[in-house]
Order: sequence, then structure tokens, then C-alpha cells
Amino acid sequence: MAYNVAQKLIASHLLSGEMTPGTEIGLRIDQTLTQDATGTLVMLELEALGLDHARTEVSVQYVDHNLLQADSKNAEDHDFLRSACQRFGLWFSKAGNGVSHPTHMQRFGIPGKTMVGSDSHTPAAGSLGMLAIGVGGIEVALAIAGEPLYIRMPEIWGVRLTGELPPWTSAKDVILEMLRRHGVKGGVNRIIEYYGPGLSTLTAMDRHVIANMGAELGATTTVFPADEQVEVFLRAEQRGDDFTELLADPDAGYDVTEEIDLSTIVPLIALPSSPGNVVPVREVAGRPVEQVVIGSSANPGLRDFAIVAAIMKGRQSYPGVSFDVNPSSRQILQDLTRMGATLDLISAGARLHQSGCMGCIGMGQAPANGRNSLRTMPRNFPGRSGTQEDSVYLCSPETAAAAALTGKITDPRDLEELFSLKYPTLQLPAMSSVNLAMLEGPLPPKVAARVKLVKGENISSLPVFPPLADRIEAPVILVVGDDISTDEILPAGARVLPYRSNIPKLAEFTFDQIDETYPTRAATTRDSSGHIVVAGANYGQGSSREHAAITPRFLGLRVVLAVSFARIHWQNLANFGVLALEFTDAADHDRIQRDDVLVLVGIRDALLAGSEITVHNKTRDEDYVARHRLSTRQVDMLLAGGLIPWLQKRRAGESSERA
Amino acid sequence: MAYNVAQKLIASHLLSGEMTPGTEIGLRIDQTLTQDATGTLVMLELEALGLDHARTEVSVQYVDHNLLQADSKNAEDHDFLRSACQRFGLWFSKAGNGVSHPTHMQRFGIPGKTMVGSDSHTPAAGSLGMLAIGVGGIEVALAIAGEPLYIRMPEIWGVRLTGELPPWTSAKDVILEMLRRHGVKGGVNRIIEYYGPGLSTLTAMDRHVIANMGAELGATTTVFPADEQVEVFLRAEQRGDDFTELLADPDAGYDVTEEIDLSTIVPLIALPSSPGNVVPVREVAGRPVEQVVIGSSANPGLRDFAIVAAIMKGRQSYPGVSFDVNPSSRQILQDLTRMGATLDLISAGARLHQSGCMGCIGMGQAPANGRNSLRTMPRNFPGRSGTQEDSVYLCSPETAAAAALTGKITDPRDLEELFSLKYPTLQLPAMSSVNLAMLEGPLPPKVAARVKLVKGENISSLPVFPPLADRIEAPVILVVGDDISTDEILPAGARVLPYRSNIPKLAEFTFDQIDETYPTRAATTRDSSGHIVVAGANYGQGSSREHAAITPRFLGLRVVLAVSFARIHWQNLANFGVLALEFTDAADHDRIQRDDVLVLVGIRDALLAGSEITVHNKTRDEDYVARHRLSTRQVDMLLAGGLIPWLQKRRAGESSERA
Repeated sequence: MAYNVAQKLIASHLLSGEMTPGTEIGLRIDQTLTQDATGTLVMLELEALGLDHARTEVSVQYVDHNLLQADSKNAEDHDFLRSACQRFGLWFSKAGNGVSHPTHMQRFGIPGKTMVGSDSHTPAAGSLGMLAIGVGGIEVALAIAGEPLYIRMPEIWGVRLTGELPPWTSAKDVILEMLRRHGVKGGVNRIIEYYGPGLSTLTAMDRHVIANMGAELGATTTVFPADEQVEVFLRAEQRGDDFTELLADPDAGYDVTEEIDLSTIVPLIALPSSPGNVVPVREVAGRPVEQVVIGSSANPGLRDFAIVAAIMKGRQSYPGVSFDVNPSSRQILQDLTRMGATLDLISAGARLHQSGCMGCIGMGQAPANGRNSLRTMPRNFPGRSGTQEDSVYLCSPETAAAAALTGKITDPRDLEELFSLKYPTLQLPAMSSVNLAMLEGPLPPKVAARVKLVKGENISSLPVFPPLADRIEAPVILVVGDDISTDEILPAGARVLPYRSNIPKLAEFTFDQIDETYPTRAATTRDSSGHIVVAGANYGQGSSREHAAITPRFLGLRVVLAVSFARIHWQNLANFGVLALEFTDAADHDRIQRDDVLVLVGIRDALLAGSEITVHNKTRDEDYVARHRLSTRQVDMLLAGGLIPWLQKRRAGESSERA
Repeated sequence: MAYNVAQKLIASHLLSGEMTPGTEIGLRIDQTLTQDATGTLVMLELEALGLDHARTEVSVQYVDHNLLQADSKNAEDHDFLRSACQRFGLWFSKAGNGVSHPTHMQRFGIPGKTMVGSDSHTPAAGSLGMLAIGVGGIEVALAIAGEPLYIRMPEIWGVRLTGELPPWTSAKDVILEMLRRHGVKGGVNRIIEYYGPGLSTLTAMDRHVIANMGAELGATTTVFPADEQVEVFLRAEQRGDDFTELLADPDAGYDVTEEIDLSTIVPLIALPSSPGNVVPVREVAGRPVEQVVIGSSANPGLRDFAIVAAIMKGRQSYPGVSFDVNPSSRQILQDLTRMGATLDLISAGARLHQSGCMGCIGMGQAPANGRNSLRTMPRNFPGRSGTQEDSVYLCSPETAAAAALTGKITDPRDLEELFSLKYPTLQLPAMSSVNLAMLEGPLPPKVAARVKLVKGENISSLPVFPPLADRIEAPVILVVGDDISTDEILPAGARVLPYRSNIPKLAEFTFDQIDETYPTRAATTRDSSGHIVVAGANYGQGSSREHAAITPRFLGLRVVLAVSFARIHWQNLANFGVLALEFTDAADHDRIQRDDVLVLVGIRDALLAGSEITVHNKTRDEDYVARHRLSTRQVDMLLAGGLIPWLQKRRAGESSERA
């Protein structure tokens, strides 16, 4: 049978299931990527799993998010992550080495491999012909422990590229064109695969830009073939031996298809406050700009900085503009400096920041309220910049540089006339400045086994949760309505995020925005019956953060009884041992009030026997019928108390079988 | 009469008083320097003064402190400062242009001039033969408005330098030697003047290091002659025409004298947590180091970075060390990059941060609790790094580089054996990369007059305070003991500092650590009788922040009745119209209780007539005798409601005389 690239990647790693869209498949995972914001929890999960040594081919922990270090917490998290890497056999990429995605691509990416990462832009590695998927932290922890990744087989969306990009446009405009056509939900349950004659003009780093922001379309991931461009890239990284060709079979097909003629692309820009609000730059030209930020994993390559430097060379950033440059990695900054472009940027008035994610995830560089900020970054959700009423636009490096020169949104093609400037032809170095000194390799298992985790005062262990009881009699301590987001269950932001490694402390912020008495009231149930939350429809929408399942569970949550659940939070509840039940009659939601006591009996048999379970309201002497949507594997897991105890139990079983 | 350099500077700017130590003198001020952390208040004070246009020769507003921009406040403060510079005729140095002190020295410093700055390291300009003094914000505002600076004539402390520094030592070791000998109070009420044959081997930027950290000795300021080294410096900055020779008369004397033979200097280090805890590096060699930070106004020069780059060149920072480099200015980073040294630092594993103060004032780079951090910065007070239990050492760039290589405190002379490394001889560029694009000059007065101040939602105007009433009957709403610091009156830190431009909001934190009900209770007195605070000895010690006088005044404070006051806070209370009285019998302190009502009558006559005033306790029917220490000028000012209304009144008088 003829396979496209995505199918080849899946087929070569398929452990269970069939490659029919919608079917659950289990995949072998070769590599993992974690960053510091989500990685501390992954390391605590590895500790809880009792992992001895990583079972993946390559697992890398990057420190790129929390670099500002306003107090001791971030530095202590970095120390903890380093010790965990030494203990569990992972690579450690030091603070300052750079953003995970370009760094991973340059140093570790290998065509034909699979990867999961606890970062939504993990798909960027698809630029090398990898199958790279962003998942929750615990799924990365399981992959590190050698477990398969379970997903539902997506559709494969073939996007045929023809032609060649015109001057003053670049890869960012290609992915903005995809977002212009399809919006932020256009890729849901799909893998985007680019193919066709236009591909040959896009370097591997150009493809990184396109694969990275495929996440903004909601796609499961994006893949490119591993072709000559990938070989050129790997040779420049002194990793020519890692190259394996991976091409679609000549007669391969796609579930959905589409075409982009690159020669028709014009400079595009995403307006505030969604990556899906894309229009031609020309349409909004002239709006005043107060900040221009170059950087992030969405435009991380040497050429993305070098093109800006070439445009700015010998010129000055506009007086009222803060012109911020975030090198994406130490290696790229090194190359940029070697070729003289860093000097051009500094001379032009750049604020040159440390290598890392920085403003992209709101770590500094917050603009003034209501003032336009143009960024080469992937996201402009409201407030993500750190500023409540922000006005962030997303664009290519070319468009960003044009605004840095003129102080207003400017189609970069107009620079030809405004500054008598031809589109620069870049002379990039043929070989990269490879320097591994900020990457610490895994220790040998025997040495690693003796390493102690270094836990600052803000780092707690992951709580151990007991198996689900067969009978639950517990009070409803919170009744909420529809569309409660994970931000409302557990907020993020500078006030809360520093406690990401400290579940007991983090738990104090649970439901903070809805009912600040919840943590105190919940805690009283923790060591006895536990408690129940009753919710409306679409419970747990929004961010995938697993903390939103962990902290209520830590405070004694046993059951959420809702009209319906958002998919990822539903999965997270199961992963951490909370029974998620849906009313069969949505009207029952209104019959329950706070402090009602609910009783569930024979839970184990009921879950195993079918999809329905009866909930008795002892306070009102009423019964409600609820259903669960758990697979057999998930019922098992839930009964064990969650993914971690389930795995521990299974492993103990394996050990005793071997004994 | 033979004058030393300090006396020449004072004599040429003397407007009132005599040059006898201890006597109040008034000085004409030629230049001012403000930074963003203190500058927003200075601009609000200029607004309150109704200033039309700066009357100084040069006034520059730098943005170097609050660069992290975690939310919109800092960006909005930067916008406000820029608009205020345009309005009042000041220079504006954009965020990213660099730390005020080296930037001012390179672009504006002129031998023979006087300067005040709202930053305690303002004395660094003494390296060019200037008289540069750090003062409170309002005194800078007054200088900008053309008013004299009043100080008590200090003693002149002549420090004769002989010999030449040995390899692996540099200017930082000289000022650390001064701190080793005299501690952090050794320079109080003194101007330090360096002279002697050893001077010829110290460049102007070396002298900057020494003058800058003279502040750590508590000195009023530090001066150097303007000699050939200063001429070389100014020529390299393309400002040879600004050079004027300024030397001590051959037979000039000093009030106090001292000698340092530079050839005997060894690498020194200040231990946690005071710049005065100085010991030879050798004594503490071997202690583990987790962070090394290069930068700040204490070691700001190109050579300070270049020497580190030369030591690190071709080598790697120690794996467990975070090696942070903060370029002090865009110009210096440009020169460093031009000479190839930036590339050496990046290759060696440096985290290259944006140009500015950064970690020196706890804006990022906070280390882990209890882990040793070596810094080329001027201060290591407890917690200043942002980490509560920090362990910060201060040292030369050479000593810092040695620790970056070895991961432990290391005498840099040992690098000769450890790394077969000779002390590098630097080839610095003869001419600096002058680039004025991030410096916006003052607008012409007619254009400036039309500029509107740009005030983000966090920027309020300075409150207008009415004249002191002649009769005060007000409740005592707070009674405190001895040694209350300005940190207790109004805390700093990341929680409070962002509100530095917003007095009503800032006021909510007043006495937060002592009695969190104070702001609410005080506010009820604000529009009626006002209120009184009763305190013990040394009230208002610590930081000079004038906010600690303004926010209680804003909340209705009229009188502080204390056993004694710390000097600067006492001055600040007077400047903002609060009557500071001392008990003649300290035992009276204990006779007053919260909510007692005190009555003062005939205040105006009493203050003008003599030093004593009677305070009647209406609640207890007791009388206490209190004294004030105000000069006639200060009584006038206090009666007017403070410095700003006093000046407004005087100017109105001048106008009507002219009319």
C-alpha cells in the first residue's frame, strides 16, 4: 500500500490499533522534549513512577521559559531539573542554551523518529520528517518510562506547495496564509503534511516555522518529508550521519487535500488577539507601533534574525519603538554574531535579550496597554504578553523589521521605495557553530542511580493518590455552571506559576476566581470522605494544564458530575484518579445544591459492567443516572487511583511474574 | 589659597555659605541624572512645580532599572518618562541604551561641572573631575528647576595612590581595599579625593569603578582630577573639546589623608551580605559557586567585559554555573562585539542579558537560596538580589571569571597554573562606537511647551499638599518604637515598586509591615484634622526613598513626634510638609497611647521664634515639650506645605515683582 510521510511514521511505530481515522492507536516513542514550565511536574511524575532510567532513545529537558528569576524559585527549579536529568538519564539544556524547539532540531532531531513533548509547539520537529506531538506532562513522563502514546488516529491533510515565495515574504507568511484560510480550529484531529514541488525552495528551518505554528491551527502535528533540504540542514549541524531519507510514496494519497501557490503569497499579519485573525499587511498599514519583538520558536532560525539585521543594517530603529531581539538559542546567537549581524542589530538600537522564550510566554517585554506590539511569535491570545489590554500582532521578520524602521505597520515591500532598499540576499554560514557545552548528557545508569534530587523549598514531591473507593459518600462542596475553564479551576500567571512544582502550595489557588473558600473547605474532606464537584456543560475547557486536575484531587476531589466535559481535562481527571461522570439528564444538574451528600455504591462493578452508574442524593433522597466514557484501559487506570499508581501496579506485576 | 580638586569644584559653584566642614553651603548645579525607578517621581515633581523648561546645562533621564516588563506598568512608565523629557526639555535615554552612570560618563560628563542624581551611584562621574552627588528625587527636581543644592560642607579625604596594580588585580580591588580598611561608614560626611603618582596608571573607566563604589563607604562623593587620562577618554568618545584640565594646586592639603600602594593590592572579595565584609579571595577560595554575574555600574567599562572574555576565550563556563553577562550599555556591547569579545563570551556559555542594571537591583537573575553568587556589582545587602536567603559576593571581573571557569571561588592568579593562562593584555579600540540614536535630545522650548504628558493608568499626579495649619488637633493613630526603617514605613520590592508613580495606590502599602490597618484608619483623617504618628529613636533609618514621607502625608500625616530621627527621612518629612518634632524628654514617648488626641497651637510663631514647642495631650491633659531642628529656610518651606508649594509661592512672588 502507498503511504504518505505521516502514515510511514505512524506505521513504523504502531504498537496497537489500526490506522483508520478515529481509532485509538498506540505508538512507540523515540524521543521526548520537556521545558522548565511543564518539566518540573514531569520530573516529579518520574519520581512518583519510581523510574530508574529513561527508556527512550533521547530525552531532553530544556530550560527556556522561566528565565527572569525575580526570586529564588526559578533558580531552584533549574537546579532541581538538572539533578532530575542526572538521576533519570536525561539530557539537560542549561538556562541560556535556548528555546527547546530550534535547539532540539539542531542537536537531536532525526528523520523518521517519533517524539512527544510537554509543549504545544513540539510539532516543529516535523520539519525534519519526525512525528512530533505536544501532550500533557504525564504522557511525556510515561513515554520516558517506555510506555506507548495513545491517540486517536487523525486524518492526514495533504497541502501541496507549488511555486516560489516572492521577495519580502517568508515561511511565516505561508503558515499565516493557512491560518487565514482555515482559522484556529482548521487542523483539529488532523496531521498536516506538506508536499509538492514548492517544498524544494523551503529550507528545513523555514519548514520549522510552518510546522511550529501548525499548532495554531489546532492540528495534532505537522510533517514534512526528510529530503535534500533536511540533509543539507543536518550536514551543517555536523550530523550528516543522522540523515535518513523519508519521502511519501509516489502514489500516496491524503484524507483531505489543498494547494498553495507560494508565488501568490503576500505579507500577512495576524491582528489582535488570535493567530487566526489574519489579513494582508497592506490592509492595516499605517497603524502606529510602539514595540517590535523578534524571536521565539515561531521564527527561530539564523535567517529570521539575519534578514532583520540586513534590513536594519546602517539604519536606526524608530525613536518611539522598543526594538526587542530575543535570540532563540546560544548557537544561533553565536552564528549571528560570527557573521556580523548581531553588531548590525545592536547598532540599529536593538535591546538584545537573553536566549529563550521571553516575551512569547509573557516573561518580560510586556507592552503598554493598548499600544501596538508587532511580534514574530506564534500566539497573541489576550493578555498572553503580560499586559491585560494588550494589542499584539503576529508577522514575519520582514514585516516586523519594516515596523521597527517606520514606527508603524508597513508592508515590507514598501521599504524598496521608502528606504531604496532591495530585498537582501543573505550569505549564511555553510556550517553552524556547534557547541555542546551547555548541554549535559545523561549519566551512566549506575552513576545516575546514586544521584539525589535537589529540591529547593518550593519543590514538593507529587502526592500519591489511593485507589478509587468502591463506595463513595461525599458532600458536594461546589456547584458551577457551564464552560468553566481550566483557568478558573487553577489560574496561571506570575502570581501562581512560580508554585508549579509545589502542589500543596499551588492547591491554595484552586477555584480562586470562583470561590476562594473552596481550598479550605475542600481540605477538610481530604483525609475522610473526599468531596464532589457538580458542573454544567463543557467543564474544563481551555488550557491543557494538568495541574487543574491534580490540585483539586490533592484537596480531596473524588468525583466531578457534569453535564459534559472538555476532552483534555476529562483525560487529565482520569489520569489523576478522579471519576468524571456525565448526567444522562442534564436537568439533574439543577436539582443538586451545595452541601448535598451524594452516594455511589458498587463503583468498581458498575464501571466494568457498562457505561451507566446511579448517583443517590442522600440529602434529597433522589437518584440520578450518570454515564462514563472510559475505555477498559482507562477504567483500570482510574480504579488504580490514576495513571501513576496503575503503572506502578502493572510494573510490580511484571516484576513478580519475572521473579 | 591652594585648593584641592574638590575645593575647586565647590568654590567655582558656591552660591552661599563657606567652605568650612559642617557649614551649610548652596551649590549651583550644572547637570542632573535620573533613572526610571526614581525618575517618574521627579517628573511628577516637575509637573507639580509647574516647571516650564529645564534650567540646567544638561539633564538626562535614563531607563535602566525596570526593564523586565512583567506587565504593562513598566512600559507605560517608560512612555511617561519620554513624554516628560519632551515636555520639560530633558534628554531621554531609551530602555536598552544602558546604565545611567557609564552612559552619562561617555556621552555627557564634563570636567569641572557639578551634577546631582537620584541614584546613589551618581558619584561615579567624579572619575572625570566632576562633583557628582546622589540625592533624593525632589532635590534633583529642584536642581532641574535651577535651584541650588544645599549640603553641609564635607571634609576632604585625600587618598594618595602610588605604584601600579599587579597582574590579575584591577580597579575593583582598589575600592574593595578601601572598604576593607574603612567599612561602610568610613566615608560619611567626606568627599574622597584620589591623587598621587599611582593615578597615571588608572584609566578614566578604572576611576569610574572606584568613584562609583565610594558610595559604599558612605561618602558624599568621590573626585579625581581631570588629567591626561580623562583627556584620552573624552577624545575616544569624540568629545575632546569637552576636556578641561582640573588639577589640585601643587601645595593643596586635605582634611584627612591616607595612602595606598597599588603594587601591594591583592584580589579581594566582599563576603555576604555587606560591601564592607572584605577579605582576600585566597581566604575563601574553594567555596562552591552556582552563579557568576558580570555587569552593573560598578564594573561597567569595555575592559571589564573584555578581560572576562579574554580569560574565557576558547574555554567553557563550569557546567553547574549560570554565567550571566549584563552589558552595561548598548555602546559598550557594540564595542565588545566589534572587537570579537562578545562572540568569545557567548561561545564560553554566557547568558547575555539586555543592557541595563538587571540583577544589580534585583531585576531578575535571583540566585537559589543559600547558593553562592559572585558578582562584579557594588552591593550585596541581604535580599537585594531578589532571593531572601541569598549569598552574594562582590569581586573584580578577574575573580568572577576565575569562578566561572572553576565553579568555585578562585584567586584569579591561580589561573596561571590551573589553565596555563598568562594575564591577558587587552587591545581595546582607540575610539568608541559612538551612536546617539537611543538618546533623544531636548525639544526647543516652544515645541516642548505643547507636549502633553503621557500617563498610563498607573501614573497619578503628585498630590498637592496645603500649608501647615497654625493649630493642629489630631489623633495619634500609630505609636511605634525605636529604629523604624523606611522599609517598614513603605516597603520596596516587586510587590510595591511597580506603583512608584501612583501615590494613591502606593499609599495602600504604608506601614504595611507594622499595622496593616493604618492606611484605612489614616485615610479617614485625611480631609479633616489629619493625624499624628509617635515614634522612638532613629525614626526613618535606612533607604532614602522619599515615598516614605509622601504616602503617609498623602494619608493625612501632619506631625511625627519622635525621640529622634534619621537624617534623610527627617529632611524628606520637611520637604513634604510634615512637622518632625523630637521629645525633649524621651520618657514622654511612653506616656502617649494610640487614639490620644494631641493639640499644638500657635505653630507658626513657635517655629519662627525658637526651637521648642509645647504639645498638649488633650486625652490625658498632659503637656510635653518638643523641639525642632529646622533652619529658617526649612521653617519657611514647612509652613508653605513643603518644598514644592514653597517654591511655587516664591516663584509667584518673583513673577509679580517682575510684573
